[in-house]
Amino acid sequence: MNSLQLEKIGSLKLKPSPLPEISSGEILLKVTHCAVCRTDAKMWERGQRDLVLPRILGHEICGVSEQSKKRFVVWPGKACGHCQQCRRGSENLCREMEIMGFHKDGGFAEYAAVPESSLIPVPDDLAGNIASLAEPLACTLNALEQAKVRKGDRVLIYGAGPVGLMAGLAAHAQKAFPFIKDISPEKLRRSADFQKQIRIENADASPDNPGGFDVVINAAPSQDTFLKGLSDLRHGGRFCLFSGLTDESPVPVAVVNEIHYRQLQVTGAYGCTRLQMKNALKLLSAYKDEMCLLIDDHIELAQVPAVLPKILEGQALKFIVKL
Amino acid sequence: MNSLQLEKIGSLKLKPSPLPEISSGEILLKVTHCAVCRTDAKMWERGQRDLVLPRILGHEICGVSEQSKKRFVVWPGKACGHCQQCRRGSENLCREMEIMGFHKDGGFAEYAAVPESSLIPVPDDLAGNIASLAEPLACTLNALEQAKVRKGDRVLIYGAGPVGLMAGLAAHAQKAFPFIKDISPEKLRRSADFQKQIRIENADASPDNPGGFDVVINAAPSQDTFLKGLSDLRHGGRFCLFSGLTDESPVPVAVVNEIHYRQLQVTGAYGCTRLQMKNALKLLSAYKDEMCLLIDDHIELAQVPAVLPKILEGQALKFIVKL
Repeated sequence: MNSLQLEKIGSLKLKPSPLPEISSGEILLKVTHCAVCRTDAKMWERGQRDLVLPRILGHEICGVSEQSKKRFVVWPGKACGHCQQCRRGSENLCREMEIMGFHKDGGFAEYAAVPESSLIPVPDDLAGNIASLAEPLACTLNALEQAKVRKGDRVLIYGAGPVGLMAGLAAHAQKAFPFIKDISPEKLRRSADFQKQIRIENADASPDNPGGFDVVINAAPSQDTFLKGLSDLRHGGRFCLFSGLTDESPVPVAVVNEIHYRQLQVTGAYGCTRLQMKNALKLLSAYKDEMCLLIDDHIELAQVPAVLPKILEGQALKFIVKL
Repeated sequence: MNSLQLEKIGSLKLKPSPLPEISSGEILLKVTHCAVCRTDAKMWERGQRDLVLPRILGHEICGVSEQSKKRFVVWPGKACGHCQQCRRGSENLCREMEIMGFHKDGGFAEYAAVPESSLIPVPDDLAGNIASLAEPLACTLNALEQAKVRKGDRVLIYGAGPVGLMAGLAAHAQKAFPFIKDISPEKLRRSADFQKQIRIENADASPDNPGGFDVVINAAPSQDTFLKGLSDLRHGGRFCLFSGLTDESPVPVAVVNEIHYRQLQVTGAYGCTRLQMKNALKLLSAYKDEMCLLIDDHIELAQVPAVLPKILEGQALKFIVKL
C-alpha cells in the first residue's frame, strides 16, 4: 500500500509499505479520510514528545472495516484498560498509552491496524470527510470538560486556527458565549463566516470585559496566551492549557502567584476519550454545514508535505486527505 | 485601649490607641483571643500585597460582642455582597474586599470594629483559644474544596507548619489519606503527636508512591513545593497553590507544559468564606484535644514581636494572644 512516512524530523515521504500487521484485538481499516493536524506539521518540523520514528503519521481517521464493511472513526489511543486512569474513565491519560500516528502507525496510508476497542461507529447521515474531524473536535470537548465550561460562561479562546474555532463551536453548543482572539487579523478574517454562523465574537472588537472571562482556553502555543490569558480571567476563573507552550522563556513567578491570590484554576487538556469522540460525532451531525466552512481542501497523500508549511504559518484551516 | 500596630515594615509596637470607630452595620467586639499567623510575621518582615500601613495586625480573632455579650469568631473579610463573586458565594474573592489586619485594623487589640455580617457564633462547648483557630482551619477547608479533595484521595501536603497540619486534619476528617513532607526533620518531629493522632503519614518514611498522589497542597512558600509537588501528582492530579511562592526565580516552561501533557490541575486558594468558617468551628469541636497539640503558648500582646522571628524560622506552631 501507499503510505506517508516521517523517516526523521523534516523528512516526510510517500512510499510503498506492506499492509499493517494485525495483532489480536485489532481489525484492518481501509482509511477513507484522514485530516491533517497542526501536530502532524509540528512533528515534521520539530518532533513531539510522544513521537517514535520512523512513523506513518495521521491520527484524525475515518475508514471502513475490511471485515464488517461498517464505517468508523478512530479513537487514536490504545489504552491498557486496567490502570488507575483507565478505571477512572480518563483513558487518554493511560500510563501505557500508545497513540496512532505517534507511537504506532497512523492514518496517512491506505490501511491501518486499529484496536477494535478504538472504533467509534459513524452515523449514517455523516459524510466521511466531516467525520474525520471527530478527533480534534473531541479534544476541544475535553478542554471544555476540564475547564468545567457551563451554560452562560463567557469563554475566551486564544487562536483562530481550526481547533480554536472548534472549541468555539463546542462552547456555543453548550450554551456558553465564545469569544476569540488572534494576533493575526488575516487569520481571524479567514474564518469570518464560521464565526458568524456559530456566533463567536471577536474579543478585540467587543466592548469592555468587566470582571473578566469565566474561562480562557489557549489554542495557540505562545507563552503570551498563558500570561495574557490568566489576566483576562475573573477572580476564580479557569484557564485551560489546551496547547503546550513552545517559547523557551521561563514563566515569571508573579504570574504563578496570581493563581494563588486570585484563586484561579489552570487545567491541562491532552487528547480525548472515546466518550468525547462519540459526543463529537453527534455535534458534527448537528453542525455539518458550519464544519464544511473549516475545510480548505481535500487532498491526496502526496500533497501533504506541501501543505504542512502553510499549516505551520497559520495560513490554513483544515486539509483532509481523501484516499 | 492597648493595640499592637505595624507602623512600617519591621516596626511593630504596643501603644495606646482610641477605641475603634464603629461604622453602620458594625459592632464593637471585645477581643478575647487572637492567634498569630505566619502572614502577620511576613507582613512585619516584608509587607504583603493587601497590607495598608499603619495597621493593627491580627486576623484570627475570637471575642465577645459588647452589645449582646455573645461569643463570636470573626470572618476577617468585609465583602460588598453584590458583586459577581459575592453572588457566587465566593465572597473571599470580592472585588471590593477589605480584610481585617490587612486593609482594616485587626485583632491585636483589646477591641475591634467588626461588620455584623462577619460574626460567626462560637458553640458553647468550644473554648475561645481553640475557636480562634477557626480562620486558618477554614482556609485549609477552602484549599481542599478548590482541589476537590474526595474520600479516599491520597493528599500530600508540603510544609509541617500549623496550616499544613490543619490541612492534614481537614483531609483526614473528609476520609482522605493525608501525607506530609517538610525539609526540616526537626519541624516534622515537633508535631509528631498531632500527626499520630490524626494519622498523617510522613511521606518520606512511607513506601513508594506508585502512580502519584491525587492531590498535592503547598503549605510552604518555596518554589520547590510547586515544582516537586507537580511531579508528585498522578496524571490528572490536582495541585493546590495554597501558599504564594516567595522565590524570585521564574518557573521553567517545561513545568507548565507538564500541566498540559499530564492533564494536571493547578488551583489557587486564598482566604476562606463564612460557610467554611462555620464548618471549621464544627471541626474544632470534634478535634479539640488534637488542636491543643498545635498550641505552643498563650501570650500577651507585648510578647508578639518576640515570637515573630521564631515563626518565620519555622521554630513554632501556634501562639495565641490572650487579652
